[in-house]
Amino acid sequence: MSKGLPKKEDNFSAWYNELVKKADLAENSSVRGCMVIKPYGFSIWEKMQSKLDEMFKETGHKNAYFPLFIPKSYLSKEADHVEGFAKECAVVTHYRLKSDKHSDGIVVDPEAKLEEELIVRPTSETVIWNTYKNWIQSYRDLPILVNQWANVVRWEMRTRLFLRTSEFLWQEGHTAHETEKEAKEETIKILSIYSKFLEDTMAVPVLEGLKSDNEKFAGAEDTYCVEALMQDGKALQAGTSHFLGQNFAKAFDVEFTTSEGKKEYVWGTSWGVSTRLVGALIMAHSDNNGLVLPPNLAPIQVILIPIFNSEEEYEKILNKLKKIEISLKENEITCEIDSRKNHKPGWKFSEYEMKGVPIRLALGPKDLLNGTIEIARRDTLTKDTVSLDEINNTITKLLKEIQNNLYEKAKKFRENNSREVKNYKEFKKIFKNENGFVYAHWDGTSDTEELIKKETKATIRCIPITTKKVSGKCIVTGRESKGLVVFGKAY
Amino acid sequence: MSKGLPKKEDNFSAWYNELVKKADLAENSSVRGCMVIKPYGFSIWEKMQSKLDEMFKETGHKNAYFPLFIPKSYLSKEADHVEGFAKECAVVTHYRLKSDKHSDGIVVDPEAKLEEELIVRPTSETVIWNTYKNWIQSYRDLPILVNQWANVVRWEMRTRLFLRTSEFLWQEGHTAHETEKEAKEETIKILSIYSKFLEDTMAVPVLEGLKSDNEKFAGAEDTYCVEALMQDGKALQAGTSHFLGQNFAKAFDVEFTTSEGKKEYVWGTSWGVSTRLVGALIMAHSDNNGLVLPPNLAPIQVILIPIFNSEEEYEKILNKLKKIEISLKENEITCEIDSRKNHKPGWKFSEYEMKGVPIRLALGPKDLLNGTIEIARRDTLTKDTVSLDEINNTITKLLKEIQNNLYEKAKKFRENNSREVKNYKEFKKIFKNENGFVYAHWDGTSDTEELIKKETKATIRCIPITTKKVSGKCIVTGRESKGLVVFGKAY
Repeated sequence: MSKGLPKKEDNFSAWYNELVKKADLAENSSVRGCMVIKPYGFSIWEKMQSKLDEMFKETGHKNAYFPLFIPKSYLSKEADHVEGFAKECAVVTHYRLKSDKHSDGIVVDPEAKLEEELIVRPTSETVIWNTYKNWIQSYRDLPILVNQWANVVRWEMRTRLFLRTSEFLWQEGHTAHETEKEAKEETIKILSIYSKFLEDTMAVPVLEGLKSDNEKFAGAEDTYCVEALMQDGKALQAGTSHFLGQNFAKAFDVEFTTSEGKKEYVWGTSWGVSTRLVGALIMAHSDNNGLVLPPNLAPIQVILIPIFNSEEEYEKILNKLKKIEISLKENEITCEIDSRKNHKPGWKFSEYEMKGVPIRLALGPKDLLNGTIEIARRDTLTKDTVSLDEINNTITKLLKEIQNNLYEKAKKFRENNSREVKNYKEFKKIFKNENGFVYAHWDGTSDTEELIKKETKATIRCIPITTKKVSGKCIVTGRESKGLVVFGKAY
Repeated sequence: MSKGLPKKEDNFSAWYNELVKKADLAENSSVRGCMVIKPYGFSIWEKMQSKLDEMFKETGHKNAYFPLFIPKSYLSKEADHVEGFAKECAVVTHYRLKSDKHSDGIVVDPEAKLEEELIVRPTSETVIWNTYKNWIQSYRDLPILVNQWANVVRWEMRTRLFLRTSEFLWQEGHTAHETEKEAKEETIKILSIYSKFLEDTMAVPVLEGLKSDNEKFAGAEDTYCVEALMQDGKALQAGTSHFLGQNFAKAFDVEFTTSEGKKEYVWGTSWGVSTRLVGALIMAHSDNNGLVLPPNLAPIQVILIPIFNSEEEYEKILNKLKKIEISLKENEITCEIDSRKNHKPGWKFSEYEMKGVPIRLALGPKDLLNGTIEIARRDTLTKDTVSLDEINNTITKLLKEIQNNLYEKAKKFRENNSREVKNYKEFKKIFKNENGFVYAHWDGTSDTEELIKKETKATIRCIPITTKKVSGKCIVTGRESKGLVVFGKAY
């Protein structure tokens, strides 16, 4: 580690960018807006995938794979959908290159023009519902509970590693149901999977809620979301689950015969989380020394570092560390020894701090004599010397404690940065100086939401599911509201 | 299962297409040349991925992710590479759609034309070596052992589910090394991983060998491959491992400082297997009743089916089956009960035969009295009645036996369809009537290989690694050969 990070209090954005780089998570590629996810960053995403995939499968979902390309005409079939995505589409128009005599280079072969242009999928509702049309005839073919892990492309003008990139990785679930009730239940079931994953695995507390019409998915009846608060007080939409009604079934003519022999359109849902979650993870927990990872997602949970002055000491200490490593692995703790001699212990300490490894063990000659080991926590940056006899129990307990501590800390931060406001003046003051989640009464109209956005940059992050159904007056128009909604400045 | 399959002896190609459809593995999408991999087919691919990923990681490789798009100019940097891929590229030329007043539809926005066209990756050497340039300064940064699981696009004119599709899923490994020796060792190490995977997991015997210059990867110095024989006597290239020499390092100017302080170009390898393996699996083992899966890749290893005449029997039998299911699962055997009442047992038997489930258990009222169960093997189509007391042991042993039997059967088939020929007349006769692997002497020239291909459609599948270094005369030109090479008609 050559130099430290910018302080997050001074420049959160510079801090984030440098951290992503220095912790070796990802980098910008030479293709505008597309990122390279480096092995360390990718291993965090793999852990996220693996846990989510398990949760989807436990609830009856199966993976499949649908084409990368969507014919242009499909995209147009659902009116709101095309409206939402047309402005950011990568369009394939040709299928061949050829050598050019004049320029001595290669050019697109004008004779290989596609009859119909293909869009690189920004999301797959259209191509999937076009497929479901052939899969569904009768109520016996329902439900279909399918997910795919895939790359998608949305041509973003201003990109940011993990948070907003032209290409990103995600999972997209697409389900088809007999009844409205069943589809709505699926939407909520997935929302709770996301919520549980964020809270238990990522240690990020979330609000569950409904999006306002302005913010909902292009083509959905209702969009539910999980919203998290980042350390700069800005909100991040971490996952969405859409109740599609019969919109895509109607657009792609997907009807089924009910058990009573009637024809009806199929009810649908879609839902997704993406590599953006890695960005959320970073901004929720990390500090000025680098990444802080919850043990449940850490590619390395424990790093073991030898401290030595001579070759003889090195051998003895390494031997001991290898024994500890074996015993930790038997307890299903992911650990590694950094036995490199060309780096000093201090350099290694900074490196693993930067990479967010939850626990660091350092063993030196004195420890060897005393039967002890130095144990350092990444989350609190505290150190302790403990007996080697109980190292497995100590580590197991500590990993749980760290996981829990990160969650509690993030929750406390959110509590300290959530306020209810009574009037628009107070509202504006908060979004001028502090940000955070702001609960306020809203009259339910798009016009008011747009006005607020224009004047403060804050938007409705969600209408909480567990909203207090208190009556009140809209802070802007004074009209009757139906309950408190949550405002925030969004990533 | 409504109807049976065409016989594979009559029309292998029709048999394959119907099997893919009836076993619910995949289907053509409405996007030309792109397939939809259905949940059952995808679960086989997932099992392949999981095993291969484990093998790559055990040998020190890490996953990462690189952009889907490759700037056109990158592709041109390695001369052979662009020559090999230019004719089958999907080209992105625009990044926005807009509504069209005249047609009332949406059109590509001519104002959103990219300055430089982007190619949807057909393979990622160029974009990855362009990235490695920044990752590698000194010998200390080497080796880089990276793999990615990704989708790639090659605009194929004649496509076939799993075997040749415009978009396919694969893994592509890209490694960078200090020395030629190390890079060559990596190439061979990967070849043996592929070979082990094909033989032990897929139960498909393979030949390991080197490609002739005509058949090698565009941009490689040497291409190694694993070649398998399908039941119609045609050869299938199942995986390739390329020694890239310093070709891509030179094209992308990737130099490093050696431990002696000198500047040198980095040595590279790349290697891949794809969803084509699912096609290989089908064509190696399946029969006229449908898919035959080796237990190591079967999404369901054992299917349990209740036989009953009354509701009372149904309840009792289902209860017993649930107990068996629990105990099989405790032994890490993947199993399911098909408890549906709206299908007869006979219908279910055909369905799971079509889907290649290795073992079928059927429990009826008599079995319940006698403490027995009927056990049917998918590979041999034989049935037996066994005691319920030893069901776990029986199944565990049988799964191993089936795995082994499939391998031995495929190996025997290959032996029976491998011949050494002494002259071109004999050679032509074989490729007119029978196909198979044909060992023959070849003079080592591209001209001779091309002539043979033109006259017989057979190509050199590989120059076996373990080739007998017997001297002999080329069957076509009579010139001196260096050893026997293997010919076949390729998929």
